[in-house]
Amino acid sequence: MSDLLVPDTRVLAVASHVVYGHVGNSMAVFVMQVLGCDVASLNTVDFSNHTGYRQFKGTRSTAEQISELYQGLLQSHLTDFDVMLSGYAPSAAAVEAVGAIGIDLQKKAEGTPGSFFWVLDPVMGDQGRLYVNDDVVPAYKKIIHHADLILPNQFEAEVLSGIKIDSLSTLAEAINVIHCTYSVPHVIITSVQLFKLSQSGAVPSPSKNLLTVIGSTIRSNGSPRLFRIDVPAIDCFFSGTGDMFAALTVARLREAVAAAGPAVQGARSWVSPDDVTASNLPLAQATLKVLSSMHSILEKTLEARDAELAAAPPLQNSTLTAEEQQKQEHLRRTKAGEVRLVRNARFLREPVAQFTVQEWLKEDLPSSLQ
Amino acid sequence: MSDLLVPDTRVLAVASHVVYGHVGNSMAVFVMQVLGCDVASLNTVDFSNHTGYRQFKGTRSTAEQISELYQGLLQSHLTDFDVMLSGYAPSAAAVEAVGAIGIDLQKKAEGTPGSFFWVLDPVMGDQGRLYVNDDVVPAYKKIIHHADLILPNQFEAEVLSGIKIDSLSTLAEAINVIHCTYSVPHVIITSVQLFKLSQSGAVPSPSKNLLTVIGSTIRSNGSPRLFRIDVPAIDCFFSGTGDMFAALTVARLREAVAAAGPAVQGARSWVSPDDVTASNLPLAQATLKVLSSMHSILEKTLEARDAELAAAPPLQNSTLTAEEQQKQEHLRRTKAGEVRLVRNARFLREPVAQFTVQEWLKEDLPSSLQ
Repeated sequence: MSDLLVPDTRVLAVASHVVYGHVGNSMAVFVMQVLGCDVASLNTVDFSNHTGYRQFKGTRSTAEQISELYQGLLQSHLTDFDVMLSGYAPSAAAVEAVGAIGIDLQKKAEGTPGSFFWVLDPVMGDQGRLYVNDDVVPAYKKIIHHADLILPNQFEAEVLSGIKIDSLSTLAEAINVIHCTYSVPHVIITSVQLFKLSQSGAVPSPSKNLLTVIGSTIRSNGSPRLFRIDVPAIDCFFSGTGDMFAALTVARLREAVAAAGPAVQGARSWVSPDDVTASNLPLAQATLKVLSSMHSILEKTLEARDAELAAAPPLQNSTLTAEEQQKQEHLRRTKAGEVRLVRNARFLREPVAQFTVQEWLKEDLPSSLQ
Repeated sequence: MSDLLVPDTRVLAVASHVVYGHVGNSMAVFVMQVLGCDVASLNTVDFSNHTGYRQFKGTRSTAEQISELYQGLLQSHLTDFDVMLSGYAPSAAAVEAVGAIGIDLQKKAEGTPGSFFWVLDPVMGDQGRLYVNDDVVPAYKKIIHHADLILPNQFEAEVLSGIKIDSLSTLAEAINVIHCTYSVPHVIITSVQLFKLSQSGAVPSPSKNLLTVIGSTIRSNGSPRLFRIDVPAIDCFFSGTGDMFAALTVARLREAVAAAGPAVQGARSWVSPDDVTASNLPLAQATLKVLSSMHSILEKTLEARDAELAAAPPLQNSTLTAEEQQKQEHLRRTKAGEVRLVRNARFLREPVAQFTVQEWLKEDLPSSLQ
């Protein structure tokens, strides 16, 4: 019986927990476990459900509570992690507390390059809007240079780079600035809608129905090694997809790095030798599998959502105000849109959709980056 | 591709959470998810590690926090659970809060027998010793008559029945008293060391190397329908095995009840018709699979533990006091004894070990129960 597991990996996952549904650790932990990772989950909030419902109950952890749990692990020698995945933290102080954990784990691993890897998802906002306090941004800026891979979305990449991404040139520049400013060796920008960008360079104009993921692993001279993967966009917003992306990336990158052999496994931050082209990077190969799994699961989710909504039509209750009816309809649609994770776990283990990775060639780059 | 999933099941799991390792919900959630259950996890404590390490950090939820999270689910209509699994709660008030959730869910399902099932693990103590406050016992006694299945260990069965279990007769009596006193239709006593009991009745003397699980589903006249499964004992104590048992039981019982058809699925508390013999009960059939999965995972855990302990021999540090050395050795052995869950998940999906269930025949029962 094939188990389809990635190599042994001990992960510390630091993110939010929700009782119902799949976001934060309530998404990421199962995703990594199914692929064979042993996951310790340190929860930064404990909510009844995700905030997309527009109402929830529960508590946020303080920075002290987060640090305290980590102290608990330390005192019993339970910190032998290969990877840390950090996501949402509910305050600037909490971001700092999570940062201190990453920095401590990195310090312990200093003597053995490649023995610890920190994937940081700088959860700050989306679609041009911050959804954290303003002071969270500088808190992230302070810790990011310790991370090995960061996973901003387009808006977060703008916030971190200070560059408005409105063209392929500015996108490439933003990645370059992130590499340089924060010394982050790996970057993936998890959702770029290229059709919204004015076209420049030789990259053909993409369709409105494509979602583009852009990634890069730095070269020894500090220049980016850019790759691009286009996937069919699924016409619906699902909460937790960023967390699914991050979790799958942890497992698949670990697998791809093992396949690349000791030259990468034992390298500082798993950076491939300069002669490895962008599309052959472990990061690119991992991202292909990640996007394939996600595509199948989101397709299944969309089908199930539509079936659920069709099976129980909207509440028609004339005693409710229009506002209350709208709220109930929002709750119904949000619940129906929960990612159908558990029963589609086979797509996590066995990605089926075939996508291709393209190198972003030198001549496509703005002249400043050639 | 066969997924080996049990029928669609929405579970509310209420138990403890630990960052590192597998006990409480940190065991049960993954176990049920791997088998295809959609699990909402409501955590009653948030600790760095299990208490077997003899040191830990973190927080206990108050009864108010537990109720608040449930209110959050209620207000967004996220309570469509088929099963609730409740485990450790950190105070009498917390037990009451968990009880109120179970009672509320049961009330909602009143009109549709079989549509909601509550599995309650009355976590109070083990090996003759309470490890909760004294006031937790009456709190459990108040809520247990709402549960459909309870999973006490031998000591907890004694506490609930008021009967000292020191023979097969008293064991049968204890189960009978639990059925009657608490109107609980299903009971499994999860670990009985029969060799320690003085022998009575016609049941042959069991070996020291066997662990016995005894279960019963009530008949319509209130009498027990007892079955017994002996499994090879694994000579080591592993934390979280009770939670693994409970989680597997949820999934496998749901599966066995579906296989038994509408007469059981639609029956109040999934109680089989009187003509179903003990060994053909869904509860007995489920328990066979549960114990098979557990046996393989614990065997693998024992192997891995021994390998881990052999690979890194005890700390020899002459600067430490004898007491400190002992503490460090305890931590090392406890960590090595964490259940190897994730990488052995295939044994959850595909039980391989073959055990057999025996009916506990009428003539074996004490005369009062014949």
